[in-house]
Amino acid sequence: MAEQFDPATHPHRRFNPLTGEHVLVSPHRTKRPWLGQTEPPQPTDLPTYDPACYLCPGNARAGGERNPAYAQTMVFTNDFAAVLPPPAPTAPPAPHPLLTTRPVDGQCDVLVFHPRHDVTLPRLAHADMLTVVAEWARVYAARGRQPGVAHVQIFENKGAMMGCSNPHPHGQVWSLSEVPTIPATELANLARYAAAPTAAPSDAPRGPKGCPCLLCEYVHFERSVPANEGRIVVQNEHWVALVPWWATWPFEILLLPYHRHIPSLLHLTDKENDSFARILSAMTKRYDNLFQCSFAYSMGIHQRPVPAPDGVQDDDDDDVAHLHLHFFPPLLRSATVRKFLVGFELMAEAQRDLTPEQAAQRLRACSEVHYLDAPAEVAA
Amino acid sequence: MAEQFDPATHPHRRFNPLTGEHVLVSPHRTKRPWLGQTEPPQPTDLPTYDPACYLCPGNARAGGERNPAYAQTMVFTNDFAAVLPPPAPTAPPAPHPLLTTRPVDGQCDVLVFHPRHDVTLPRLAHADMLTVVAEWARVYAARGRQPGVAHVQIFENKGAMMGCSNPHPHGQVWSLSEVPTIPATELANLARYAAAPTAAPSDAPRGPKGCPCLLCEYVHFERSVPANEGRIVVQNEHWVALVPWWATWPFEILLLPYHRHIPSLLHLTDKENDSFARILSAMTKRYDNLFQCSFAYSMGIHQRPVPAPDGVQDDDDDDVAHLHLHFFPPLLRSATVRKFLVGFELMAEAQRDLTPEQAAQRLRACSEVHYLDAPAEVAA
Ligand SMILES: [Zn+2]
Ligand SMILES: [Zn+2]
Repeated sequence: MAEQFDPATHPHRRFNPLTGEHVLVSPHRTKRPWLGQTEPPQPTDLPTYDPACYLCPGNARAGGERNPAYAQTMVFTNDFAAVLPPPAPTAPPAPHPLLTTRPVDGQCDVLVFHPRHDVTLPRLAHADMLTVVAEWARVYAARGRQPGVAHVQIFENKGAMMGCSNPHPHGQVWSLSEVPTIPATELANLARYAAAPTAAPSDAPRGPKGCPCLLCEYVHFERSVPANEGRIVVQNEHWVALVPWWATWPFEILLLPYHRHIPSLLHLTDKENDSFARILSAMTKRYDNLFQCSFAYSMGIHQRPVPAPDGVQDDDDDDVAHLHLHFFPPLLRSATVRKFLVGFELMAEAQRDLTPEQAAQRLRACSEVHYLDAPAEVAA
Repeated sequence: MAEQFDPATHPHRRFNPLTGEHVLVSPHRTKRPWLGQTEPPQPTDLPTYDPACYLCPGNARAGGERNPAYAQTMVFTNDFAAVLPPPAPTAPPAPHPLLTTRPVDGQCDVLVFHPRHDVTLPRLAHADMLTVVAEWARVYAARGRQPGVAHVQIFENKGAMMGCSNPHPHGQVWSLSEVPTIPATELANLARYAAAPTAAPSDAPRGPKGCPCLLCEYVHFERSVPANEGRIVVQNEHWVALVPWWATWPFEILLLPYHRHIPSLLHLTDKENDSFARILSAMTKRYDNLFQCSFAYSMGIHQRPVPAPDGVQDDDDDDVAHLHLHFFPPLLRSATVRKFLVGFELMAEAQRDLTPEQAAQRLRACSEVHYLDAPAEVAA
């Protein structure tokens, strides 16, 4: 009597073991018409240099300083930083145990990816992408080893619909005296899994002290699923980009190394950095090709909160971290129709219509040649 | 030597005891210029009846059905429901312990607040607001007592920037066979507080079995703070609307009863319903007056997941819930500049610039007379 369960048809819930939260999946609903607000189209014909851009070489910034004539990347302190350098004043006693205040200090850096105003990550040449990857590692090491820094968060907001005010390709690095909520939760769940794994031992790589790693196990399983049924979008000799089983955003991607347990950017070999740059290029090109637009997203790098101090051996507790990047893109069904994270999702639980498997299938079907570089007949 | 800590000047973190998450507060940053995307202005001259609106009386809906000529509220099943009525098929065994699936069933209702296309909550007459409040309670009781329903979530998305496709005033009610992530977390934290309170006993009301209630204690403390320093926006004989200590959204409001522990809408007396309708009107009018626009938000009602079964005595474990409404409005500094929840907030931790105390002060300074009803010289 009972119908066969089909995850591409029947509403269900999936569990995110990194955050401990659920997502409600409503695959039968993908056909509903869109009556809501649409986004303005992204500008496509950007100049290579914009005299009004505060990130272009030689231009003045909000704080009055002038950018150097930089040739590769550029890093500077955010003129409107969310935290300020130490020391922070001591907080007074809480007026009530439920109303606690902890002063936070740290640094907010801006990391400009390239001198050209119009070259986003998917449009970077391989050598330039390698420079960005090296710069992320350099800033992580420099800020993470400053006294008092407990966590370094590298992220990028791309596109006006992600609140990004400037199309010049750049990301940010916020280094704080506290470990923020989400990385702290992920680290706690990684540590919990290492101590009490829920899966039987596999031949996946192991984390520190020979304990299983949640992400090593997860990506190992995903690589065993037949490619046309699974969630992997693209992979190379060290890295996998996949739409995770528990994805919240329509075309969310989790990018991570699979062939060994890698706690941070500083653990990458030259070869792993090279394949990192290649897969970043391959997956962001597919993003742009999906709706033939500059695909908006928020990206974040999760890894060890800060590097081990100089001279300290690896394999300490924080090495339970497994380096990974989250890409959360808002677009849903075209270059101008986005997902809104509102209502039920703000009040109760994340929700999606398109399944992660369907999203991965759509992204796999995209070309790895950027649509702006493709011959006209291919791009059409 | 050390500077005195000032929560209106120095970056700090606050803890949300309902969700267990932190928010990073950067009050020194409120002066940064806005260079990002602005929102289209909201339409102000809406017709009282729109022949193209699928919620107006007598019109056809997406599913083909025709609305009755309703005179007060109207409830119908969402034509594109996120979950479907039971029975759901049984899920197959998980392919891996990290990839679990749970079928979910339930009902998604649309609750139209009023036959007039142009009358939002702040513009409703008192008798009509009372009808909305009664309808929320009626739907909560009816859906919550259906076999298999574990949680009833009432919410409203108001405004195009909250993804709401239709200005006709309406909310939604999603009744699910599982308790969603956020209410489950809040209930667990309320239960934890009742068992092991962090504050010394006060003369605040108590929850079930004489145990302290986190929200009774919190709102009791807030009422003891001098009005011009505190976070209370408006209060009456039973209810308080305040910008919580841990608010994430710029003008977030927590609306809750303070004079006794009230687990759900079904526990409200006639007098409490009357003052509930009055404070809803008072606080949403202030919202509209803040930037002289129809103020967008997502609103959600948190309470007992479902009512106690008929005949079962109250004071059971679920009565640890304390009825409250969250209002999450995106606007930040004018009718067209919104907060984007992106980047650091998606990858690390919620963040705000304006302090909750400053937001409460701004809302307290607004008139309780709706700007569209005010004489021109007052509105100017
Ligand atoms: Zn992560
Ligand atoms: Zn709540």
